[in-house]
Amino acid sequence: MSEGSQTRPAWIAVDWGTSNLRAWAMDARGQVLAEAASEDGMGKLAKAEFEPALLRLIGGWLGEGPMPIIACGMVGSRQGWCEAPYRSVPCPPLDPLAQVAVPTTDPRLAMRIAPGLRQTTPADVMRGEETQIAGALSLIPDYDGVLCLPGTHSKWAQISAGEVVSFQTFMTGEMFALLSETSVLRHGMEGDGWDDAAFDSAVGDALSRPERLAARLFALRAEGLIADLAPAAARARLSGLLIGAELAAARPYWLGQPVTLVGEAKLSAAYARALALQGVTAPSLSVTDCTLAGLTSLAHQAKAAR
Amino acid sequence: MSEGSQTRPAWIAVDWGTSNLRAWAMDARGQVLAEAASEDGMGKLAKAEFEPALLRLIGGWLGEGPMPIIACGMVGSRQGWCEAPYRSVPCPPLDPLAQVAVPTTDPRLAMRIAPGLRQTTPADVMRGEETQIAGALSLIPDYDGVLCLPGTHSKWAQISAGEVVSFQTFMTGEMFALLSETSVLRHGMEGDGWDDAAFDSAVGDALSRPERLAARLFALRAEGLIADLAPAAARARLSGLLIGAELAAARPYWLGQPVTLVGEAKLSAAYARALALQGVTAPSLSVTDCTLAGLTSLAHQAKAAR
Repeated sequence: MSEGSQTRPAWIAVDWGTSNLRAWAMDARGQVLAEAASEDGMGKLAKAEFEPALLRLIGGWLGEGPMPIIACGMVGSRQGWCEAPYRSVPCPPLDPLAQVAVPTTDPRLAMRIAPGLRQTTPADVMRGEETQIAGALSLIPDYDGVLCLPGTHSKWAQISAGEVVSFQTFMTGEMFALLSETSVLRHGMEGDGWDDAAFDSAVGDALSRPERLAARLFALRAEGLIADLAPAAARARLSGLLIGAELAAARPYWLGQPVTLVGEAKLSAAYARALALQGVTAPSLSVTDCTLAGLTSLAHQAKAAR
Repeated sequence: MSEGSQTRPAWIAVDWGTSNLRAWAMDARGQVLAEAASEDGMGKLAKAEFEPALLRLIGGWLGEGPMPIIACGMVGSRQGWCEAPYRSVPCPPLDPLAQVAVPTTDPRLAMRIAPGLRQTTPADVMRGEETQIAGALSLIPDYDGVLCLPGTHSKWAQISAGEVVSFQTFMTGEMFALLSETSVLRHGMEGDGWDDAAFDSAVGDALSRPERLAARLFALRAEGLIADLAPAAARARLSGLLIGAELAAARPYWLGQPVTLVGEAKLSAAYARALALQGVTAPSLSVTDCTLAGLTSLAHQAKAAR
């Protein structure tokens, strides 16, 4: 949708997470006309700041009448714009009837938020990934197996008959960021270099001797100091140790199951590599494709339900 | 040593870590006359800032002649004031002949730094703890067994015949700080409450199923959101999981060995409790007592060696 174009979107898809806000202008066939992003994540906004942040980003896409906007992510949390209460698994990842309408000041915003999912035992929650899961299931219909969604908080979800049966969250991405950017280990892993062999052997170490994990982290610093461990190798080994620890704990999810990854390309590739070392071939879907497919399914189902 | 006292110290003991600088005015018998502390840790100082930072803290203790000052800790690292190259284990924790004299501008400062220790395989290093270990061995002579020094970077050291035979570092304290103060888990563990039962069961979980560690962390947040997990219980459980993971990896150090703790009282108590759950009774020494005893042994040995 070029600047000054007369084409208005049929609806707007919004992925509103803790750190970022992304929006897509969609046509009636589910095609992307334009996209926009800002750093107005939920974590930085007070209640009254959500509507202005959204208008800053998508104001140019609005016409005179109300514009359907469908959002997913932390925007629907208690600390977000408007709480969309969790739905409990087992259940389909999205339910058009469970969307929460957001009261807005600007009458042009006909905004709805998709709720996240909760699991009682073991306690777990997700917001945003349920939409990615719904999108993955619309891209690979009749999928029975496991979806792995690597990220700041990676999720593993068991899918059967179109429902999320159970899921489990791992803080692997956040741990990697904290350890590589904030902890004492940051000194030995400058840059963004990578070393596949170091990654592979760390995944193997973590999986074969998970009880040794705590002993392996500081060694990254010590080897940098006294054995010239290269930053690229230290960085890849930290990633391998943490992903290996995740795989060790997630074994019931991937062992003997079809696994499909939904994530950023580079991160999914690391997970696919770690899984391949365990004999599991995991194809990947793009997380943006899945988010959009999920929100689109909701837009179309909602229309059908009217 | 009261303000305006004529009593000058015989020497000054200094513990100069990454975050803090502590100093004690000592008499010839190894008694503390006065103490002082500042936040001028090594991590905040450029090379030229060390001497002024020290003078700010202990200037009032100096006379006209040169004052012997013995320091341990990160001040002797490559990024510190003056590098004191690591000594290699196995070796006694301190060697008076290995102290490094620091060139100073102010002629009243006769400053020496005690070197840290390194281990080639598995790679590991310590700076500061070698002095605590020497102090512990002067407080409990002829000790053969294991010393556990809990802290930001906990150390386990195997001691035999007055030497450090081997050691291992764990980032448990730093991980606890990062996870409880910076990660998403901070939301559910406000305050400094504690829950012994939650701690105990988490230690047991981590030791019996160490491969499940990565799966247990986010549950602290999820249970806070959907099952009203109390902040005190969440906090104690995080500590128990991390200390349990450390114990799982450090098992060769404590299983069937005498273990003595050297640390801050509250942290040592948590480790003693976790070890007691494994049937290990570990007495505790004060980390300050051990640091001072270590630096004092160096002061006296240095005098004897002259």
